[in-house]
Amino acid sequence: MSFEPQSLTLPDPLPLDGGGTLAEARIAYETYGELAPDRSNAILLCHALTGDQYVASNHPLTGKPGWWERMVGPGKPIDTDRYHVICANVIGSCLGSTGPASIASDGAPYAMRFPVITVRDMVRGLVGLLDALGIERLHAVVGGSMGGMQALSLAANWPDRAERVLVIASTSRHSAQNIAFHELGRQAIMADPNWRQGDYYGADTPDNGLAVARMAAHITYLSEDGLTAKFGRNLQDRPEKSFGFDADFQVESYLRYQGSGFTRRFDANSYLYITRAMDYFDLAEEHGGSLAQAFAGGPARFCLVSFDSDWLYPTAESRHIVHALNAAGAPVSFVELSAPFGHDSFLLDVPALDRVVKGFVE
Amino acid sequence: MSFEPQSLTLPDPLPLDGGGTLAEARIAYETYGELAPDRSNAILLCHALTGDQYVASNHPLTGKPGWWERMVGPGKPIDTDRYHVICANVIGSCLGSTGPASIASDGAPYAMRFPVITVRDMVRGLVGLLDALGIERLHAVVGGSMGGMQALSLAANWPDRAERVLVIASTSRHSAQNIAFHELGRQAIMADPNWRQGDYYGADTPDNGLAVARMAAHITYLSEDGLTAKFGRNLQDRPEKSFGFDADFQVESYLRYQGSGFTRRFDANSYLYITRAMDYFDLAEEHGGSLAQAFAGGPARFCLVSFDSDWLYPTAESRHIVHALNAAGAPVSFVELSAPFGHDSFLLDVPALDRVVKGFVE
Repeated sequence: MSFEPQSLTLPDPLPLDGGGTLAEARIAYETYGELAPDRSNAILLCHALTGDQYVASNHPLTGKPGWWERMVGPGKPIDTDRYHVICANVIGSCLGSTGPASIASDGAPYAMRFPVITVRDMVRGLVGLLDALGIERLHAVVGGSMGGMQALSLAANWPDRAERVLVIASTSRHSAQNIAFHELGRQAIMADPNWRQGDYYGADTPDNGLAVARMAAHITYLSEDGLTAKFGRNLQDRPEKSFGFDADFQVESYLRYQGSGFTRRFDANSYLYITRAMDYFDLAEEHGGSLAQAFAGGPARFCLVSFDSDWLYPTAESRHIVHALNAAGAPVSFVELSAPFGHDSFLLDVPALDRVVKGFVE
Repeated sequence: MSFEPQSLTLPDPLPLDGGGTLAEARIAYETYGELAPDRSNAILLCHALTGDQYVASNHPLTGKPGWWERMVGPGKPIDTDRYHVICANVIGSCLGSTGPASIASDGAPYAMRFPVITVRDMVRGLVGLLDALGIERLHAVVGGSMGGMQALSLAANWPDRAERVLVIASTSRHSAQNIAFHELGRQAIMADPNWRQGDYYGADTPDNGLAVARMAAHITYLSEDGLTAKFGRNLQDRPEKSFGFDADFQVESYLRYQGSGFTRRFDANSYLYITRAMDYFDLAEEHGGSLAQAFAGGPARFCLVSFDSDWLYPTAESRHIVHALNAAGAPVSFVELSAPFGHDSFLLDVPALDRVVKGFVE
């Protein structure tokens, strides 16, 4: 993976929830739109598990359009003619920010010597970036899925840093089922002999395990109805079943494609670390067991969005957060949108979401 | 896996839906209770994907009690003081019936030379067993999950062979999501280098891949609420998170245990073949695209049971079958039971199910 992302190195070691610090943490980021002279128009976008900083510009490895082009750009709901949009690759990831593939001080990749991080650690890195960029207070922080966790963590731990907090298709803690799916993916990676306890850099990578992990995750990103509507029991490029183990069904072909494509753009160890951070995420636990306490006294306005077909982080999870915000006396709006795409709805063509985002960030 | 199951070899080659035949098919089976002199009291139990013939007797490999001891035995809902209960290992499986681990005519294991079979092929094997045992007409056929598919297939294709058909937590076809989860498991097995295109007999077996496949399946067998109630975010034998990749959470430990335990009693190739058969299952497709047509004119009485927490084969799938039975003019009763255990409810402590089973088979 050779490309030169825009990045900066944090001046101070980054303290970590697991103890210790991460020295010389590099944060890779992209920006879109001009920063106002008074620095009042910055919007921080937080990416999801396998996302990156390329929100509205082509991905340097795949050449594909940014992951939220539909939402971010001139005249779009997050209007880069008005706002300065910042998106950074989280620490632990593999698109330029410090993660397990990065070179440690001894000249070798961290691999599994990289510290286990939390969502709050990721946000510490983002706050460090904002400090370095001289942005004291965000117009808004916005995130879907794990990006929503980061937005919540910022609001809870650095309450003065964002005026608006928009959380889409997210949760304040990982459920047992969420953990189970991630553990399945991790076990698939670790079962791949190429994984070699994480020391595979410069050698064959554990692509088979990572592909299986991605397939498992992908099932959770789609709804059953969506899968049925998109694929049903349709066969792939053949009139009849093969009575073999090829990808007879379109859904099989789709999953194999998703799995193998993913391995070309993502590092298996990063997948281990980031899923672990998500599984560890429990915002109430960080704040004395009370989610309301996490948000007590903060000045921000909140907006929560869930999707009726999202079974990964169902509406009940958003409602749980809204109840806590209500208990904390925070201004919050909440809407469950109807969309057929399951959890992935936050990335896809849901015009109602565009309107909610535009309305809230203005 | 060395043990000597009770079995017989079918006298005629078994015709297969994929073309060709399976010669000298061996069917391993267990029976419980006496067959009446007029042979009128036989109940055929059909097992699920990873089930076997050891319904009410100890498993020869694990030593564990039979999988439906709570339901089958003297004085139990399926009362072996009154009924002669038969349960056979399906072809393709690995507990004594002919499957990929069996020795082919050339003296080597079939491995992936074993033909891809269907649920109807499994039932052909069961009908062959009934013929060999001289049982013309069953008092009832009973099955949960894939066992329910077999019961439906028997009713549709051999309508005079069973007076009563009891189908629990099952479906008439695999959905795209069902196929996706199975494909995930198959890819995990095939990604294991020990799999060697299926030629691993006598060598190291693809336990890691099979364990991952089992973990994926297990998640689908439980409900989210059930997982939350059973495990939540509880930690396993430790006061705090380890900030490592051990099984910190109980749900991780549980899944790892389920995965590794499974490899000691099941053959990975059998897992490939049986999941394939289930994915191919579409009872309407076999009958001109009409599920009602599948059941037209049959004399049997039906009972369908679903569970409200089963998201693998949700109640809508049972209702779909009931509608077809109604359209076919077949007598059918249907109940959705409330139980917290998800799909696995059919195997667990659900007293309401005991009453339904007892009432229907009497």
